[in-house]
Amino acid sequence: MSLRTPYLMFVGDAADQLAAKTAQGVVDWRPEWCLGQLRLDGCNADLGIPDMTLEEAAEAGVKTLIVGVANRGGIISDVWSNTLVRAIELGMDVASGLHNKLGDIPTVLAAAQEHGRDLFDVRHPTKSFPIGTGAPRRGNRLLAVGTDCSLGKMYTTLAIWHEMKARGMNVDYRATGQTGIFIAGDGISVDAIVADFISGSVEELCPANSDDHWDMIEGQGSLFHPSFAGVSLGLLHGAQANALVMCHEPGREIMRGVKHHSPPSLEDCIALNEQCARLTAPEARVMALAFNTSKMNDAEAEACMKEHSDKFGMPCVDPVRTGVAAIVDALV
Amino acid sequence: MSLRTPYLMFVGDAADQLAAKTAQGVVDWRPEWCLGQLRLDGCNADLGIPDMTLEEAAEAGVKTLIVGVANRGGIISDVWSNTLVRAIELGMDVASGLHNKLGDIPTVLAAAQEHGRDLFDVRHPTKSFPIGTGAPRRGNRLLAVGTDCSLGKMYTTLAIWHEMKARGMNVDYRATGQTGIFIAGDGISVDAIVADFISGSVEELCPANSDDHWDMIEGQGSLFHPSFAGVSLGLLHGAQANALVMCHEPGREIMRGVKHHSPPSLEDCIALNEQCARLTAPEARVMALAFNTSKMNDAEAEACMKEHSDKFGMPCVDPVRTGVAAIVDALV
Repeated sequence: MSLRTPYLMFVGDAADQLAAKTAQGVVDWRPEWCLGQLRLDGCNADLGIPDMTLEEAAEAGVKTLIVGVANRGGIISDVWSNTLVRAIELGMDVASGLHNKLGDIPTVLAAAQEHGRDLFDVRHPTKSFPIGTGAPRRGNRLLAVGTDCSLGKMYTTLAIWHEMKARGMNVDYRATGQTGIFIAGDGISVDAIVADFISGSVEELCPANSDDHWDMIEGQGSLFHPSFAGVSLGLLHGAQANALVMCHEPGREIMRGVKHHSPPSLEDCIALNEQCARLTAPEARVMALAFNTSKMNDAEAEACMKEHSDKFGMPCVDPVRTGVAAIVDALV
Repeated sequence: MSLRTPYLMFVGDAADQLAAKTAQGVVDWRPEWCLGQLRLDGCNADLGIPDMTLEEAAEAGVKTLIVGVANRGGIISDVWSNTLVRAIELGMDVASGLHNKLGDIPTVLAAAQEHGRDLFDVRHPTKSFPIGTGAPRRGNRLLAVGTDCSLGKMYTTLAIWHEMKARGMNVDYRATGQTGIFIAGDGISVDAIVADFISGSVEELCPANSDDHWDMIEGQGSLFHPSFAGVSLGLLHGAQANALVMCHEPGREIMRGVKHHSPPSLEDCIALNEQCARLTAPEARVMALAFNTSKMNDAEAEACMKEHSDKFGMPCVDPVRTGVAAIVDALV
């Protein structure tokens, strides 16, 4: 999977801004790739970039229409599918983060075949992967891990990647979920891989590299999440990352999506991640904390980060509030 | 997936006894279901049960033809497919442990549709599963875990299931791999599940049950195996088993299928399995050791088991040499 750039962002008839959060993430992190947005009647989201028709986008050189929006009720309407077909006729590929597959829409599939264009369903693996080997690889890798799902692992790794690029470092973003894949231009939806191939797919995602090179690897889930820990462990083993950043939301009481589990302590979560990571990366250690302090005021957040930085002897940042310069400083 | 019994065991043109090991396992553990074997020209395996033609099997009441054999080079020959079609015409379902899917053979698919018979590809999930919840469930569950793959987890759980049945206990075998599925009559190939649904599929495999009921759950892989640990962790969380049996082969130096990893120490492996299991089963503990001592003589094996039983303060058996009565004694 390798998406052609630049993009036209298709927002459809998004009910609200939240429904377009994938598209918004791409615009935030890849503004240079997002030439415009295409909104249909009834759309209540605005990505803050120019509105464009399909024809204007084709004229401007757009190579891929990105469907980075939730479709209402999981139904792809005729208006949507007509839009996708017209984009293909104008020479664009289509990439989608929907659960439904583009190739399951007969008119879209037929148009892609007729015009020789590609359809990318980034939630669905398009190839088979090898079994993981655990063989040592050169290069530097950083993986975001966490006490739970949905507390900023993607944002944290994107921020470090961005900071490293700004410093002229040799760095790639390695995406493991749909938004990250649109931002990186490729990647693997790790949670959609067949279980036997989790670590193998990640070994392929972030292969051996030069000694000055960094991979920023998007994390998923938590070793302590009863729904998804298998994904997290396979990702941890496949990533073979010497640098781990622990993502955490202070004050969260119940783990996301379940009823019976509180997040683990930072001590326990650091210890288990380090122990398991060392199976394939013997030097692995958690070298920074990245907190989501969005529910605190400035003074509370500052005090909380200072307390934890002192306690654990490592940088503690909130990527949104403070940036991640302290993490990159510690890495170089 | 629920297979109709009894079975006719199809051994095809198995090159040797090893190629028929799945079929042999079914015969060993479910002799009452295996009415006969069907061998083609060139078959070098013998399951030790009566040879039967398809017509004799249909007459004897066989409901399912079991393809429990590796096919040479992954190719399903015309002779094979003609045999499967004829079985279907005679009223049998067909269940296969091949990598190739039965439904991908046009003549077999057409016959099944015409005659209203079912095709079961036990390596491939046939339905979607829910996300795991980690919610507490009643009933008793035992899971085999291990220091590596392929050291007797299936055999150990089958032996305990068999011993419990012999004692009149209320017990089910919960299969997570192809041979186990043929033996249980249903189950889930956990390593073929999409990663997000590993623990959820296992929660469905061994649901809440009565207080006197036991599930014997077939383990897979190892938390220390760099290829498959994600499967093992999702299985551990989904199983919610208070009783763990640690399977181990003393003296094994390299983990199966990889080059860079030795098996963990028993201490480390017990500690990590207990820690992770307690996320969903707070009382979980390793309560017995099951060793594969097939490379030792009797005196060595006996000394080895005694030493480890004393050291860890729990039963240590070799299910093949000693049986598993000591484990069942400790459970009841």
